[in-house]
Amino acid sequence: MSEDDLADSRRVTLVRLRDGARAEESDLLAAEEPLAIRVNGERWMVTLRTPGDDLDLVMGLLWSDAVIARIDDADVHPAADHTVDVVSAPGRALAVRHAARATTVTAACGMCGRHAIDDVCAGVDLRGDGARVSADALLAMTERLREAQGAFSRTGGVHAAGLFTASGELLAAREDVGRHNAVDKVIGATLRRARSEGADAFSLAGSALVVTGRAGFEIVQKAARAGVPVVCAVSAPTTLSVELARRAGITLAAFARGRGMNLYAHPERVT
Amino acid sequence: MSEDDLADSRRVTLVRLRDGARAEESDLLAAEEPLAIRVNGERWMVTLRTPGDDLDLVMGLLWSDAVIARIDDADVHPAADHTVDVVSAPGRALAVRHAARATTVTAACGMCGRHAIDDVCAGVDLRGDGARVSADALLAMTERLREAQGAFSRTGGVHAAGLFTASGELLAAREDVGRHNAVDKVIGATLRRARSEGADAFSLAGSALVVTGRAGFEIVQKAARAGVPVVCAVSAPTTLSVELARRAGITLAAFARGRGMNLYAHPERVT
Repeated sequence: MSEDDLADSRRVTLVRLRDGARAEESDLLAAEEPLAIRVNGERWMVTLRTPGDDLDLVMGLLWSDAVIARIDDADVHPAADHTVDVVSAPGRALAVRHAARATTVTAACGMCGRHAIDDVCAGVDLRGDGARVSADALLAMTERLREAQGAFSRTGGVHAAGLFTASGELLAAREDVGRHNAVDKVIGATLRRARSEGADAFSLAGSALVVTGRAGFEIVQKAARAGVPVVCAVSAPTTLSVELARRAGITLAAFARGRGMNLYAHPERVT
Repeated sequence: MSEDDLADSRRVTLVRLRDGARAEESDLLAAEEPLAIRVNGERWMVTLRTPGDDLDLVMGLLWSDAVIARIDDADVHPAADHTVDVVSAPGRALAVRHAARATTVTAACGMCGRHAIDDVCAGVDLRGDGARVSADALLAMTERLREAQGAFSRTGGVHAAGLFTASGELLAAREDVGRHNAVDKVIGATLRRARSEGADAFSLAGSALVVTGRAGFEIVQKAARAGVPVVCAVSAPTTLSVELARRAGITLAAFARGRGMNLYAHPERVT
């Protein structure tokens, strides 16, 4: 298979301008396509994503958006034409909301950051997670994630997320043009693996989520929902993500690059 | 007013790790807060954004999401507690959809990129826009935008968007933790200015939209909807944004940095 056959990128023609010179060339770009998601036959949403790990993405979305609460509430199946089918397990009701997602907080959140945080933190408290991780291990995870970034090295246009054990073992790494999608994909990938191994619950206790971009509210929200006690971003956090991490008991490291990082919440886990 | 009093950033404490040393410090982070938007008294959506240009953001969202079709269909007013009220003009119906936004395509789009592009391109064809812009002018716009980035220089955590005339005059520059918000803000800012100047229509013919990040589908979608014939991104485009720009008649420049750029669609406008 040539690099041009990969689902996550595609070759396009372009005109390159450099120092006044003009040349026709071609380049690989990150693929972005809509994906339709049906729940028990009815359309739930259409989302843009980089093709390639659609079942992981949908399972992660189901978990992050609290549509499912247990590991075996629903299964996901590929359908034709950029469509994934979600089928609930017999006797299980799914909490499907046709709410906005991505930059949009659920309607229940109210109008201020405090309410948004209260909403996420209901039932979530990771302060008891005894995970400890060294700063060197976190920096090594960001390096490891960069090495795993196939599409980025080809196209320069995608984000990556990785889940690691506190000791640095890679659990899953995924890429997407959307930062939130990449996080949903790694959460979905680990959940689907736990299912296939016969686990009767889904836990990411003691794990660390590493993202190549920034750590905004929704990234930390997904970590809180999945029970991930450590979030490490290569770029900046926001005021709201720091508040949420402090409340939810999540260690938030950011600007993790070169020889250091900043710890914005629960620094006691980083040794 | 000290820098700590600005709405777009806030000072937080942190632990800085560098070369094994550990120090307590403080730093400015980009502010991120939920904003509730009501239309004629009913909640429309709650979106995360960087506070500071809320009326621009909401007006831009109304235009980008096709809730309004004419410049005077609705007005926007600040309300208490991170809330903005949208009020329709007498006799005007607003096309409010409680659909997902951001990474989510409208339900009408169907399940493949072709349908998504058809949906955006219905009634949009910018091939007739005679704007011409030099590569040097585009690079100067990216520099100018960087200079206008107050919050970024303080926090490193926000995106910026700028609208320019083809000759390089700055029409509006705005920042936000969300890339799409920054674009909605500059569109809303120019629309609101046109309103205040008594214009009876909204046109961005002959203008250029410059963004500090990547140019995905939704960035080009907003440009198409606002009639902007040139989009220039400092980072990468995607396969779908290139397809949309080619179909909609939009010049798409990306990787615009240093001494050059790549032109992925309608290069004839760049001299």
